[in-house]
Amino acid sequence: MLLHLSTWQEIEAYLQRSKTVVVPIGSNEQHGPTGLLGTDWLCPEIIAHEAQKDSDLLIAPTFNIGMAQHHLGFPGTISLRPTTFIAAIGDWCRSLAGHGFEKIYFLNGHGGNVATIEAAFSELYAEASFARAERGFACKLKNWWELKGVNALAQRQFPVGHGSHATPSEIAVTQWAYPGAVKTAEYSPQIAPTGPIREAVDFRARYPDGRMGSDPALATPEKGGELVMLAAAGLVEDVAAFAAEPFPARG
Amino acid sequence: MLLHLSTWQEIEAYLQRSKTVVVPIGSNEQHGPTGLLGTDWLCPEIIAHEAQKDSDLLIAPTFNIGMAQHHLGFPGTISLRPTTFIAAIGDWCRSLAGHGFEKIYFLNGHGGNVATIEAAFSELYAEASFARAERGFACKLKNWWELKGVNALAQRQFPVGHGSHATPSEIAVTQWAYPGAVKTAEYSPQIAPTGPIREAVDFRARYPDGRMGSDPALATPEKGGELVMLAAAGLVEDVAAFAAEPFPARG
Amino acid sequence: MLLHLSTWQEIEAYLQRSKTVVVPIGSNEQHGPTGLLGTDWLCPEIIAHEAQKDSDLLIAPTFNIGMAQHHLGFPGTISLRPTTFIAAIGDWCRSLAGHGFEKIYFLNGHGGNVATIEAAFSELYAEASFARAERGFACKLKNWWELKGVNALAQRQFPVGHGSHATPSEIAVTQWAYPGAVKTAEYSPQIAPTGPIREAVDFRARYPDGRMGSDPALATPEKGGELVMLAAAGLVEDVAAFAAEPFPARG
Amino acid sequence: MLLHLSTWQEIEAYLQRSKTVVVPIGSNEQHGPTGLLGTDWLCPEIIAHEAQKDSDLLIAPTFNIGMAQHHLGFPGTISLRPTTFIAAIGDWCRSLAGHGFEKIYFLNGHGGNVATIEAAFSELYAEASFARAERGFACKLKNWWELKGVNALAQRQFPVGHGSHATPSEIAVTQWAYPGAVKTAEYSPQIAPTGPIREAVDFRARYPDGRMGSDPALATPEKGGELVMLAAAGLVEDVAAFAAEPFPARG
Amino acid sequence: MLLHLSTWQEIEAYLQRSKTVVVPIGSNEQHGPTGLLGTDWLCPEIIAHEAQKDSDLLIAPTFNIGMAQHHLGFPGTISLRPTTFIAAIGDWCRSLAGHGFEKIYFLNGHGGNVATIEAAFSELYAEASFARAERGFACKLKNWWELKGVNALAQRQFPVGHGSHATPSEIAVTQWAYPGAVKTAEYSPQIAPTGPIREAVDFRARYPDGRMGSDPALATPEKGGELVMLAAAGLVEDVAAFAAEPFPARG
Amino acid sequence: MLLHLSTWQEIEAYLQRSKTVVVPIGSNEQHGPTGLLGTDWLCPEIIAHEAQKDSDLLIAPTFNIGMAQHHLGFPGTISLRPTTFIAAIGDWCRSLAGHGFEKIYFLNGHGGNVATIEAAFSELYAEASFARAERGFACKLKNWWELKGVNALAQRQFPVGHGSHATPSEIAVTQWAYPGAVKTAEYSPQIAPTGPIREAVDFRARYPDGRMGSDPALATPEKGGELVMLAAAGLVEDVAAFAAEPFPARG
Repeated sequence: MLLHLSTWQEIEAYLQRSKTVVVPIGSNEQHGPTGLLGTDWLCPEIIAHEAQKDSDLLIAPTFNIGMAQHHLGFPGTISLRPTTFIAAIGDWCRSLAGHGFEKIYFLNGHGGNVATIEAAFSELYAEASFARAERGFACKLKNWWELKGVNALAQRQFPVGHGSHATPSEIAVTQWAYPGAVKTAEYSPQIAPTGPIREAVDFRARYPDGRMGSDPALATPEKGGELVMLAAAGLVEDVAAFAAEPFPARG
Repeated sequence: MLLHLSTWQEIEAYLQRSKTVVVPIGSNEQHGPTGLLGTDWLCPEIIAHEAQKDSDLLIAPTFNIGMAQHHLGFPGTISLRPTTFIAAIGDWCRSLAGHGFEKIYFLNGHGGNVATIEAAFSELYAEASFARAERGFACKLKNWWELKGVNALAQRQFPVGHGSHATPSEIAVTQWAYPGAVKTAEYSPQIAPTGPIREAVDFRARYPDGRMGSDPALATPEKGGELVMLAAAGLVEDVAAFAAEPFPARG
Repeated sequence: MLLHLSTWQEIEAYLQRSKTVVVPIGSNEQHGPTGLLGTDWLCPEIIAHEAQKDSDLLIAPTFNIGMAQHHLGFPGTISLRPTTFIAAIGDWCRSLAGHGFEKIYFLNGHGGNVATIEAAFSELYAEASFARAERGFACKLKNWWELKGVNALAQRQFPVGHGSHATPSEIAVTQWAYPGAVKTAEYSPQIAPTGPIREAVDFRARYPDGRMGSDPALATPEKGGELVMLAAAGLVEDVAAFAAEPFPARG
Repeated sequence: MLLHLSTWQEIEAYLQRSKTVVVPIGSNEQHGPTGLLGTDWLCPEIIAHEAQKDSDLLIAPTFNIGMAQHHLGFPGTISLRPTTFIAAIGDWCRSLAGHGFEKIYFLNGHGGNVATIEAAFSELYAEASFARAERGFACKLKNWWELKGVNALAQRQFPVGHGSHATPSEIAVTQWAYPGAVKTAEYSPQIAPTGPIREAVDFRARYPDGRMGSDPALATPEKGGELVMLAAAGLVEDVAAFAAEPFPARG
Repeated sequence: MLLHLSTWQEIEAYLQRSKTVVVPIGSNEQHGPTGLLGTDWLCPEIIAHEAQKDSDLLIAPTFNIGMAQHHLGFPGTISLRPTTFIAAIGDWCRSLAGHGFEKIYFLNGHGGNVATIEAAFSELYAEASFARAERGFACKLKNWWELKGVNALAQRQFPVGHGSHATPSEIAVTQWAYPGAVKTAEYSPQIAPTGPIREAVDFRARYPDGRMGSDPALATPEKGGELVMLAAAGLVEDVAAFAAEPFPARG
Repeated sequence: MLLHLSTWQEIEAYLQRSKTVVVPIGSNEQHGPTGLLGTDWLCPEIIAHEAQKDSDLLIAPTFNIGMAQHHLGFPGTISLRPTTFIAAIGDWCRSLAGHGFEKIYFLNGHGGNVATIEAAFSELYAEASFARAERGFACKLKNWWELKGVNALAQRQFPVGHGSHATPSEIAVTQWAYPGAVKTAEYSPQIAPTGPIREAVDFRARYPDGRMGSDPALATPEKGGELVMLAAAGLVEDVAAFAAEPFPARG
């Protein structure tokens, strides 16, 4: 069930049977010579939309811009500062919690988002903690590649050249969903370098074509489809477990 | 050309021929008993995506959550506070301007966004103004219904019962684009009341089913298609005019 | 009744008979070669102070600095950034509402303030909306030239050369109230150019003497007096209507 | 010379002969049973306006709302939070400094403002200090009662019952300037209590009629006039000394 | 009793017998050619730790970075902007108040902190004042040299050359506590100049070796010990008086 | 070399031979029935102070309050909200970088700090990235238990009952450094439960005595000493490697 294609009464009815909502969250940033700028928000969106086809999951609109300051040296990247990101995640959660959602699950597509999303959760919890009050809702962050079996599959599919940015696995997922937007390009070295992540100018000096440790030409739509199916199943299972968690402070 | 389905090199190449980018911006909020929660971000996205099919427009990802505090009394609405919205628009623009975009055009789908988006532009301009420096880029806000001929067409299509929220014209646009998500519902009175907009509790007391002045059952996919085609043509023309504007301070 | 010339007990007594307060709000910014820097805050102050002479209106101190970033290229302009302006309006309203004021009416003298003031109201309402609580007070913004009959009179007085900044009508109002500060100057063209508003450097390049579309030499103190009297009457009427509006959410 | 009754060209001309501007700053807050709510911003405004009659001082509009959180328990008080106040003072100073003012002198009328105004100066200086850059302007805060001879005169005028809030000296100043707004009231004890200042509820419990240590019935317009004349002369002298201070870092 | 060397149960037990906590607060900043960078946070820490040895005082961890923007021109200085400092003090106080502490006493070691700490208290109180609610706790700021008898002793010890920054008294305190870190250096003039405090570049131009009005070579560990003993006794007495103050609004 | 026990000239001299500084950072929060409230800032302080005894490391003052919102349900915990923490870390780094430090190394003692510290680094880098400028300095975060060999030693020392909060290893470190503050208490179960971390009320309901997965009675001062020695050696090595990293964008 896609929230944005529903009416408010349909959401009201959904809340009678579930207090859980899934938010795909990612980033719009360069993904090397062949990866789409939207890769990191498209992947969790693709997986979440797939997962809701056969299960009673509610999927919120995609939070499509995240923390990608280090990619700003490459045209097309759009980034929020961490403090802006924290404020925005806060408003999303306050909006949803006000409707009665008690479990807000973020399916994330960008490693660079993790620290700030966790800080945003703490910022939300802190409002309650300073008041020594129960918060009323719980947040959870899960990277799609950490859903059950997904990382293992990606390692089997791409035993060499997977890397950590502009990876063949994420590019494969978008190739499967957007077959009309499969890109090819020459690049070298075949496997990109690795190293630390700092500001944008430093990043581009270290990683001139945008890849980190990856050989994205290994991606195929078929492999992407396998990843999506496995991740979608894992998402349904993981959300169910989160939805079932009790609130011990409610006594 | 959709930015999120492009690579960074494709954007780098685009910047050689144009410094203009279009950002669909809207809101995710209740739209009465038959309107989709995504209506206000779907409409500008639909129109902008249509417009780029036959012209060299670059369309950024959709900014899908806006200022909808008054709709928070209805499940499914997600809102940013104005100050959060200003911060986020600022980061989008700073990201884009840093790549060399000099004209950032926001195609808006939500009347409640207008004041805050304009304030956000002033916040960005003020950074330069306090320093007595040229800003380097210009922003423009346009509501899709103000594109050439669109309001007039909507008035012809819906001479009675158009109203100002959950209007048949915006719902028609989403019906055309998402025929599988056409909703029906009983409601009364046929034409909803009108009045001021304040906080969410006040809003729901005044407008119990979420409509303001509208009779959304008048919407049809066909009328939506007419609106989209006219708006898409108007967008191409309006963006071209904006792109052509000189920067007089550059001397 | 002027709040700043009253004691706290007088305000306490006033609150027994009315919950409404009027705040003149404007900007301190260049107004072309003959307009006073204070024009935009003096006009609503003049009108509001006039209006309270014969009616039981309570007028707060004047909020004299607004959002004028585009005028910072001209000496004497003082501007708040939008986010500062939002914070300050918020504190004014929270202060007044805490005393029991339920209707806070801003009589505005600067078009450039409108978006940010509306955003500030939404920021205030949002505090309640996120909590799904009644706000306890309502805000209203009215530009003085939109009071009943005022625009029409100005158009009759200045059928040509009224323009949109440093207009003869606003200058006439200050001439009537401050006859000792009537200024004259040579300028050309007789009617200033028009166009978009961006950062200060751009603004000064487009509008070298500060006027937009206006011929301010048309102003006379007599015409100013006519405008003040009409606006004062309109203010009394408009405030009364606002004061009479019910709060539907109070049941 | 009053900035708000000048044109931008007049300020441009003034900047040729002086880089100094005076900002009257105060607070709008309860002043006991007989003091005006505007007392703390009226006093510096009265003195500064008097001082510029016979000297080439430039007086900015009055910053009329300050930090008065402790007085919010009394109707009519309007307060900014310290962080809002810091932001607003910052924007005033950045506006003025951008025009070329190098010495910004705040003539203050409210003891409760002092800490936050000093913090605001540090916030402004810190922008330069973090960048190890010269700031380009200097700020100074002076309470009007600390101008040469003023405190001593007040002590001679009111050897008993001067106190620290709703003092006979400040009330006398407003009586002199606003003879039509002289108020009388019964109160007891004759001399109000003293003690610490905390939040508004605590303040009202400690000081039920709003006075601190004062017997405001001692005020007379004549004494007010004496204070204004002495303070105006002291202001001219103090501003001249500030204007003459060199910037040692300019080498 | 040192909070950081206690368990949470020990603090829980302490709260049964006292609601008061002491926070040493200072700054890490240059202190001239012979003063330690930590002088301003070490002094209150030394005194507070001494005082708790023979009395039932609870001492919180030391707040060791304050508002020292003017010292940033000298290596080793670390400063918070005033708004950051206000936010941090706020979080400390909200944390402590939430545990039941009703009196939070800051023993300060840096004059440059005073304005911002007072503004921070007002920011905290304002939260309650805008809501017309009792705050629940009171804050107090005391500079260690203002404890009973301390200034007088310092004046006796250093009748000439005490000055206001890098003073022999504060340096003597650290010499007593850290005899291994006594520094010597040549400097001239013997007594440093005095003047205003502005941004860091201006400060270093005025005070090239960092001293203001002082001759720190007068310091000896013995004089430091005398100051510590007197200050510690004064602290115990002053905290007891603060702890005993009633909350009049509790009725 | 301890920064706070040095003069500014000593730091100036240090900067001639090194651009690297180490900041111990932690949190002041409950650590179960036997752990000190200061554990998480004492541990990195102890290790860093030990390490500098035999090597030319510069150790900044300890950043002793971090992000511990989830522990606020236990008396003595002091926490910053993530946004406050980000602001403060930013000001520390801007202060240090302004002196010429190019490598700022945070030795961390609290897992709950990690996300926010990383977000703070991104916030700092983003300032440069939005401007497409080189940042001038690099930050690094290292948890002391991740220094070479430390985790492995802790696992050997405490093969059962190490857990993740109030662990025997961190308590052992403080026992070694503060033998006078070794605490004992009865608790059960012997090994505490584990689970997710949310707001303070939820945390205390899940972990009633504050431990997570640990059996802190296993700690001994001797084991603490072993950990300190190993960690200190690891720190010297890790800082040296960080100091040696080039800045590739400097060309």
